[in-house]
Amino acid sequence: MEEISYEDFAKLEIKIGTIKEVDIVEDADKLLRLTIDVGDEKPRQIVSGIREFFEDPQDLVGKQCPFLVNLKTRNIRGLDSQGMILAIGGEDTFSLLHPSKEVPAGIKIN
Amino acid sequence: MEEISYEDFAKLEIKIGTIKEVDIVEDADKLLRLTIDVGDEKPRQIVSGIREFFEDPQDLVGKQCPFLVNLKTRNIRGLDSQGMILAIGGEDTFSLLHPSKEVPAGIKIN
Repeated sequence: MEEISYEDFAKLEIKIGTIKEVDIVEDADKLLRLTIDVGDEKPRQIVSGIREFFEDPQDLVGKQCPFLVNLKTRNIRGLDSQGMILAIGGEDTFSLLHPSKEVPAGIKIN
Repeated sequence: MEEISYEDFAKLEIKIGTIKEVDIVEDADKLLRLTIDVGDEKPRQIVSGIREFFEDPQDLVGKQCPFLVNLKTRNIRGLDSQGMILAIGGEDTFSLLHPSKEVPAGIKIN
């Protein structure tokens, strides 16, 4: 793996988001549509291929996770995804990451 | 904040490390020297300015956290720091990030 500089890292805006709503994406077995609060005026929509890891995706509601929020918006199955959840895994092992205590939505990872 | 591409993110190697040892850095109030297992043959040394956030830094031993592991080695107070812990904060709020369950050291965040 190539070495990077601190500046390469600093270009990324990674924030804690609180998951407010979780929806199934029709005809897309692997996808969930997450509505998250990252401290902005309006919530943000993120489409993520993590459905298979949750028996009940509604368990995600209320959880806090790190999100990469300055990734160029991508259109996934007709839905705009305004960022990406950072998680572990994982063909064999999947896990979310959480703060060790509840923190204000939108706080930065650095 | 400028938008980034997925390639900008993919340049970063972020892995879960298990903290094996924590040492105080003499004459450096803010620093801790962490010895972490990120799944390599040898443990890795990371110097981090997080001492003030822990009453007893030994509480960190055994914890799993995300580390940026392909950051160019930096020399901090005479010690090589081979990466960076990713944490929240934080003048007002500091928090570590942890997997929701124990995972193998060295597993990637993506």
